[in-house]
Amino acid sequence: MKLATLKNGTRDGMLVVVSRDLTTYADAREIAPTLQAALDNWDTVRSKLSALAAKVEEDRVGVSPFDEADCESPLPRAYQWADGSAYINHVELVRKARGAEVPESFYTDPLMYQGGSDGFLPPHGTIPLADEAWGCDMEGEIAVITGDVPMGVSAEEAGKYIRLVMLCNDVSLRGLIPGELAKGFGFFQSKPPTAFSPLAVTPDELGAAWSNYLVHHPLCVDYNGEPFGRAEAGQDATFSLAQLVAHAAKTRPLGAGTIIGSGTVSNKDPDGSPGRPVKDGGRGYSCIAEIRMIETINTGEASTPFMRVGDTVRVEMFDEDGASIFGSIDQTVVSA
Amino acid sequence: MKLATLKNGTRDGMLVVVSRDLTTYADAREIAPTLQAALDNWDTVRSKLSALAAKVEEDRVGVSPFDEADCESPLPRAYQWADGSAYINHVELVRKARGAEVPESFYTDPLMYQGGSDGFLPPHGTIPLADEAWGCDMEGEIAVITGDVPMGVSAEEAGKYIRLVMLCNDVSLRGLIPGELAKGFGFFQSKPPTAFSPLAVTPDELGAAWSNYLVHHPLCVDYNGEPFGRAEAGQDATFSLAQLVAHAAKTRPLGAGTIIGSGTVSNKDPDGSPGRPVKDGGRGYSCIAEIRMIETINTGEASTPFMRVGDTVRVEMFDEDGASIFGSIDQTVVSA
Repeated sequence: MKLATLKNGTRDGMLVVVSRDLTTYADAREIAPTLQAALDNWDTVRSKLSALAAKVEEDRVGVSPFDEADCESPLPRAYQWADGSAYINHVELVRKARGAEVPESFYTDPLMYQGGSDGFLPPHGTIPLADEAWGCDMEGEIAVITGDVPMGVSAEEAGKYIRLVMLCNDVSLRGLIPGELAKGFGFFQSKPPTAFSPLAVTPDELGAAWSNYLVHHPLCVDYNGEPFGRAEAGQDATFSLAQLVAHAAKTRPLGAGTIIGSGTVSNKDPDGSPGRPVKDGGRGYSCIAEIRMIETINTGEASTPFMRVGDTVRVEMFDEDGASIFGSIDQTVVSA
Repeated sequence: MKLATLKNGTRDGMLVVVSRDLTTYADAREIAPTLQAALDNWDTVRSKLSALAAKVEEDRVGVSPFDEADCESPLPRAYQWADGSAYINHVELVRKARGAEVPESFYTDPLMYQGGSDGFLPPHGTIPLADEAWGCDMEGEIAVITGDVPMGVSAEEAGKYIRLVMLCNDVSLRGLIPGELAKGFGFFQSKPPTAFSPLAVTPDELGAAWSNYLVHHPLCVDYNGEPFGRAEAGQDATFSLAQLVAHAAKTRPLGAGTIIGSGTVSNKDPDGSPGRPVKDGGRGYSCIAEIRMIETINTGEASTPFMRVGDTVRVEMFDEDGASIFGSIDQTVVSA
């Protein structure tokens, strides 16, 4: 099933079940008022939401036209958002650009940072930016929402606690990152609010494309209306989403509604090189930092600027029939 | 007024107003079912909660006996928990022990990390620990809960968004910190769930002890029943709690219910030295790492071990009449 949260003037919005083709929705508040409430009581409400989804598909319930622009983030605010770095090509590129090695441990021990979860950007809307010098960037990612995960869960067991899958734009302020990481305590000011796709879908909606706890479709990132990234999310992942969940739960349980991100989706080129732009026949990039790194490696200098006021980014994923699975993240940078 | 959250079998507990002497409480659910709900609608509910608090003091409403052991964390889970390092003596000690300098910027730009907020430990209860080799430590701190804070708020303005004050034990796994910080993304596995005091109190409850957005009382930390720390929370703070709120809000707004911590409360000795144990007439330490650093500086080797199964920690603060302001954090390490 596909779930969304519509804006209704409250902080947590209202839960709806959306048709698979994203054209209609049914109010789900009689089952659970909000997505967090549904996740808090998943074992009880899952079958009810699933039955409502079947009715929506079969036209056996009153529905309304669905508009992605009416959506909040599926969880407008969450109790936890932690973002991994599954696609090590991204990490290799960042390091290569500054002449640093990737430590061997990065291939066995995931990078993960604790993100702010007190408020997410709606999928269609603005990215407020107070200072263009902060170097605003998108990061196209896959994210999952978990149920209650016990402390110390194995990677083999962790996958069964994944309740829903989304897309993500982990907005980053590149200009603030070096100073912040140098302080040693990780990201804080360099990670303003994140955006997620309008739809959060159960893994079974992905069919065969959900395999080994990865989503096997290209992640489509358009920048200012042009194809920018088409990285295959099922390839080049050093860690699965289940492994990232297990990493997060090593020393503590995770509460229902925890969001775990994959990190920027990033592929190597088939020839092993770090990747070419989409217009040159490559799979492109899910963030501007990567193309800047390629430029730096190739010419000694980055030429593509970070996002400025008026720039737009769109993140979406399509199934084998060309249908949008999660709806789109569609944002414009505005002056805050 | 003094607010608490009693366990009632739900994830978010029930909101109560507690008498100033911590002996009785009145159910506040008719005003707001949970503390988060109260914070979400603070402008509307504050005066109602305040009126109920007055009735509790004057015996004009039905009350029940209050027991700290029945409490959840005031927010059993929160949308944000971010912890600063206001007491630079703590940072200086950590660095000195490993022969590193404190960068000049640390005196003007606060250290802050994003903590996990999906579940907090109850104030009276256990600290589950899977492996003693992880080096479990307490960190006694002050924490505030904010309302909605606008992005870019000044330090001068930030203080007015502080709604409530608490004590905190920011449980840390010292053995996991070096490896995690070396990865560059900050703490994650090294920060298991935090505990807060049973009571969250409005700043006016502190009277003159609430000044310059700091709490001017000693923070009493007892370890295995012995006085371990008596650091004065109003002294040696490089940053006020308002400055930490402003730091957190530089690039993003903060949602109502955001918890901001002071970092480990730590004083220099009056002679300028880094501090002596309570039994030697000093103010002691709010975490084990500090005494280990002193030992390392003095003898080249730390002799006090980190917490092991069965060890207990108690964190509390008393007013000038010796009355407990926030109730106590009272925890025992258990094998997870």
